[in-house]
Amino acid sequence: MNLAVRLPVYDPHAIQDPISPLSGVANKVTPNATPVVPGSPRLTTPPNGQKQINAVKSLEAQIDAAWEVWDLIRTICEYNTRLSLALDLGPPLPNSLDVLNKWSAEAVRYICLPASTFIANAKGYPVLPKPTQTFIRDSMAHRPNIVLSSVSSNLHARGGEDAYSQYIKHLEATSPIVLATRKAGSVENFAQGYQDFLQAPLQPLMDNLHSITYQTFEQDPVKYRNYEEAVYRALLDRPQAVRIVICVAGAGRGPLVARCLSAIQRSDRNAFVYAVEKNPNAFVTLQHRLRSEWQGKVKLLFGDMRQITIDEQADILVSELLGSFGDNELSPECLDGAMRFLKPGGISIPSSYTAHLAPLSSSKLYNEARSVKDLKSLETPYVVMFQAVNVLSGDGGGASSRCGPKVQECWEFEHPRRDVVLDGRGLPPTNTHNTRSAKLNFHIPHAGVLHGFAGYFEAVLYGNIGLSIHPHRKNSISKDMLSWFPLFFPLREPLYLPRNSELHVSIWRLTNQRQVWYEWHAESFLSIDGTPSEMTTRQSTPSIGTASRSSLLPSSPSFASSPLIDAVEIPGERKAQREDSDYSRMMDGLLKIGHTGLHNADGRSSWMGL
Amino acid sequence: MNLAVRLPVYDPHAIQDPISPLSGVANKVTPNATPVVPGSPRLTTPPNGQKQINAVKSLEAQIDAAWEVWDLIRTICEYNTRLSLALDLGPPLPNSLDVLNKWSAEAVRYICLPASTFIANAKGYPVLPKPTQTFIRDSMAHRPNIVLSSVSSNLHARGGEDAYSQYIKHLEATSPIVLATRKAGSVENFAQGYQDFLQAPLQPLMDNLHSITYQTFEQDPVKYRNYEEAVYRALLDRPQAVRIVICVAGAGRGPLVARCLSAIQRSDRNAFVYAVEKNPNAFVTLQHRLRSEWQGKVKLLFGDMRQITIDEQADILVSELLGSFGDNELSPECLDGAMRFLKPGGISIPSSYTAHLAPLSSSKLYNEARSVKDLKSLETPYVVMFQAVNVLSGDGGGASSRCGPKVQECWEFEHPRRDVVLDGRGLPPTNTHNTRSAKLNFHIPHAGVLHGFAGYFEAVLYGNIGLSIHPHRKNSISKDMLSWFPLFFPLREPLYLPRNSELHVSIWRLTNQRQVWYEWHAESFLSIDGTPSEMTTRQSTPSIGTASRSSLLPSSPSFASSPLIDAVEIPGERKAQREDSDYSRMMDGLLKIGHTGLHNADGRSSWMGL
Repeated sequence: MNLAVRLPVYDPHAIQDPISPLSGVANKVTPNATPVVPGSPRLTTPPNGQKQINAVKSLEAQIDAAWEVWDLIRTICEYNTRLSLALDLGPPLPNSLDVLNKWSAEAVRYICLPASTFIANAKGYPVLPKPTQTFIRDSMAHRPNIVLSSVSSNLHARGGEDAYSQYIKHLEATSPIVLATRKAGSVENFAQGYQDFLQAPLQPLMDNLHSITYQTFEQDPVKYRNYEEAVYRALLDRPQAVRIVICVAGAGRGPLVARCLSAIQRSDRNAFVYAVEKNPNAFVTLQHRLRSEWQGKVKLLFGDMRQITIDEQADILVSELLGSFGDNELSPECLDGAMRFLKPGGISIPSSYTAHLAPLSSSKLYNEARSVKDLKSLETPYVVMFQAVNVLSGDGGGASSRCGPKVQECWEFEHPRRDVVLDGRGLPPTNTHNTRSAKLNFHIPHAGVLHGFAGYFEAVLYGNIGLSIHPHRKNSISKDMLSWFPLFFPLREPLYLPRNSELHVSIWRLTNQRQVWYEWHAESFLSIDGTPSEMTTRQSTPSIGTASRSSLLPSSPSFASSPLIDAVEIPGERKAQREDSDYSRMMDGLLKIGHTGLHNADGRSSWMGL
Repeated sequence: MNLAVRLPVYDPHAIQDPISPLSGVANKVTPNATPVVPGSPRLTTPPNGQKQINAVKSLEAQIDAAWEVWDLIRTICEYNTRLSLALDLGPPLPNSLDVLNKWSAEAVRYICLPASTFIANAKGYPVLPKPTQTFIRDSMAHRPNIVLSSVSSNLHARGGEDAYSQYIKHLEATSPIVLATRKAGSVENFAQGYQDFLQAPLQPLMDNLHSITYQTFEQDPVKYRNYEEAVYRALLDRPQAVRIVICVAGAGRGPLVARCLSAIQRSDRNAFVYAVEKNPNAFVTLQHRLRSEWQGKVKLLFGDMRQITIDEQADILVSELLGSFGDNELSPECLDGAMRFLKPGGISIPSSYTAHLAPLSSSKLYNEARSVKDLKSLETPYVVMFQAVNVLSGDGGGASSRCGPKVQECWEFEHPRRDVVLDGRGLPPTNTHNTRSAKLNFHIPHAGVLHGFAGYFEAVLYGNIGLSIHPHRKNSISKDMLSWFPLFFPLREPLYLPRNSELHVSIWRLTNQRQVWYEWHAESFLSIDGTPSEMTTRQSTPSIGTASRSSLLPSSPSFASSPLIDAVEIPGERKAQREDSDYSRMMDGLLKIGHTGLHNADGRSSWMGL
């Protein structure tokens, strides 16, 4: 079944006479017979000044209203996958496409373009207005069917019937997403066929990876270049005369070992490499490479880095244990075990990493996650190459000026961590110092349905060399890096968020002696007065890479106890109490309007094994 | 696990310095060691004027905040039945208990009363302040454990330690609900053991009722008294000389037949009774009573009233086919079939009936409905004697003045209905004229969680004689009637409603050739400006009984198509379109904040068989 939604006509009178949220629903699509809203004047040149601002606001409200109707219908139809959408782009679109982003998270199958939508260019050929052009180019990611109509009615002086479809083909060929997909080496090209496909995250600590997995990840041209650069700079920062020991913790089939050797050669330093690996299959490859390539430069050590002993302590510990959310493949726990290998002044590459979150709308991902009829599938974080998604948050503090940016930092891990109590073997007696929690406030500028959260990571390898899949910073830190798709934290039930609302997200990283897991929960609010609270927004902290870090969150992580765990000692708990009273001040002026359940309580549905 | 929630201290400074929503949570209850909020002055005499109003509003906001904390915790715990609540009534309560009603829908297991809560009466004995007295008396319905503390600290001049518990026993003995339960013949007495117990509604058309079921319902002293009175008055309104024919459609074991004969005798009219019954077991009883009691006055007819033929047409058709929601046991369909028996000027007793709805909060009922791990159980209306429930709606139009009263009328059925097209046998060819729909707007004054809807009916038997289980009118129309508990329409997922929100409920009665079912759906809104729309609130219509009918809804039912049915012709559809444009005007100034799913779409989970 297809449903046609007509995006609203640009109507400066709409402030007095808003279009009904129900009038946007037309009957089923019949190409060449697109319905027309009678009596609505179409202005391509908007009036000036305040009236223009009002008209734009009203237009946005109308586009929101058209989406509201769609949302109500598909909710009532329980996200049935047989229900898809036809967008009628006949009416002109606003210049700012922010409000249209929400359609990218919906099942848009047809886009209807009557000839009357086209304007004439200087030569008299039919072309589309700029905003419609941009929207069509962006929509090409979803491969919609474009339905042209009235093309034989000679509305334009030049080009005839074919000019319309030729122009659409031109838009497709110049679409940024189509171009990126065709470019060898791009993430979009690499990820073809994986878009919006849910993958369970790897458990490299519990499971031994297959050779094909290593091979896939070894292909990444950017990740290992940055690792080599980080090791190279770390070597340069050490005196030439002294022997330097490097330990690669988790060497796999050896890509980091090779990069370390290359960095040693380039930096002209006297250094030796230990390579630790627990996977016997990968170790065979390492042994082969030692014989054929690395004679005398490398020593191999077989075993778990949390248990084995090493001949001498290292100056530089190099590891590649990061997951899409940073710590989600248990890098903190593994490196805790390997810190015994490090000299007092030794360093870790990576030296730190942070986890980042953003609220996401995607009917596709929601439907994928619930297609397995099991609670577990809706409480498991997945690795996903996002495509039909819309990040619901906006930059700016929201009505109350109390919200952080569009994508927000949850927490950070640093290595080596000097403040942990160690037992006689040099290991931490419990894992509670690796628990984390964050409470993030997002501004939601446009109405939308929350289906889950996008998770990203950013790592500092050494100095200003890093790795990032943060959507706003990845291009300046590690452009074209292929190894990580983002994480998707689903919700059991969608949560409707009105325009100008606030979303308060709580996320925890919790642990017992055998497992690590995440729990997540969210509440929605509306501002009931316009007065910002006395809380000052925090200053941004300096960043790696060339992009400035726009996060308003503190650089040190914040902590709060899990709702289900009584007895865990969480470091910084006194700070959490202070934040609670901040929280109560923040509640002043906010009206709660909804909440999700607590997801994955006590790790019942998903966890990583230690 | 018990959770202690301390109802907030009366604090006039609270406007400047609101209590944290989290500070209300104390540790587990330890009797005799109730926690005290430090530094909060307790005023038993509130200050006057505007300051007093502000203080009361702030106090209500704080009680709301205490409940918010509880709601968040029990949601996070997924309504675990092992989680119960201890209320600390130490601080004084406000004079208006409206804001406390929400606790009646929660699992309050303990009420803590430190001796300091008690004030001294004229003689120096400890007594409770009036609002606390009332709250305790009302709470006795749930049989909480009362935890007294500090009773040996000699805070009061007279009575000693025992005076506190003696006083509580006195409150219990004088509790209206306890008194009602002890009174023979009251609904509360009759319903003992059935409180908050979900029963599937009867299907007397599809199933033949058991003898024990007839026996239970024949005990109702009020229902049959009102039926006799209605028949009596109908007879009085007919001339004495003419022979009058009464037909009892669905005679069961004969209670209505007996009442008709009694009415004939009292009214001194020349009348004859036909009794139609389809249940062969009940028919045996009827035959026995004909021989022993009704010789010559009654003729029995065996068969379905929609199919049998009758010797002569009737002046008065008497039936008792009503369910808790009026039409939910298919009275409209059965009476359609029996209208063939009626003379052109004949009447039906009942002559009309209406269905009524109110939004309900009850964690108990929600937990009961979902205890069967099946979608069906959350899309089935149940018959329930309500106890641990709270009706969330308030009277008054809400912020926007567009809402109806606390309990609202959905639709009406009238018999005989003269405008239905009939086939050659005198039967309607389809059942579409018995479809109904309603869109109801409720004002929600206090924050709460919507778990479903309460359904009630009211019937006009004849003139101003009726039957009603409408909570505000039953006592004036049919006090102490036992036969019907209300209906409960559950929700699949609870819907959080903030204070001063609006709830728009859609409910449909739909039909195909074999089944009749209900569908329901709700959306929540907040008012974004204080301006009432240009819609005028509708005038109330005159009512039966002595109570005035406070409904603001039109007396004729309104119609709208089902979201899932395309091709049903619904009478009054043109009217529905007009209402849609009203609806769009109403949306002006409202911000949608949430919605439920559509329940029981296409009758997939529950239906009545024709």
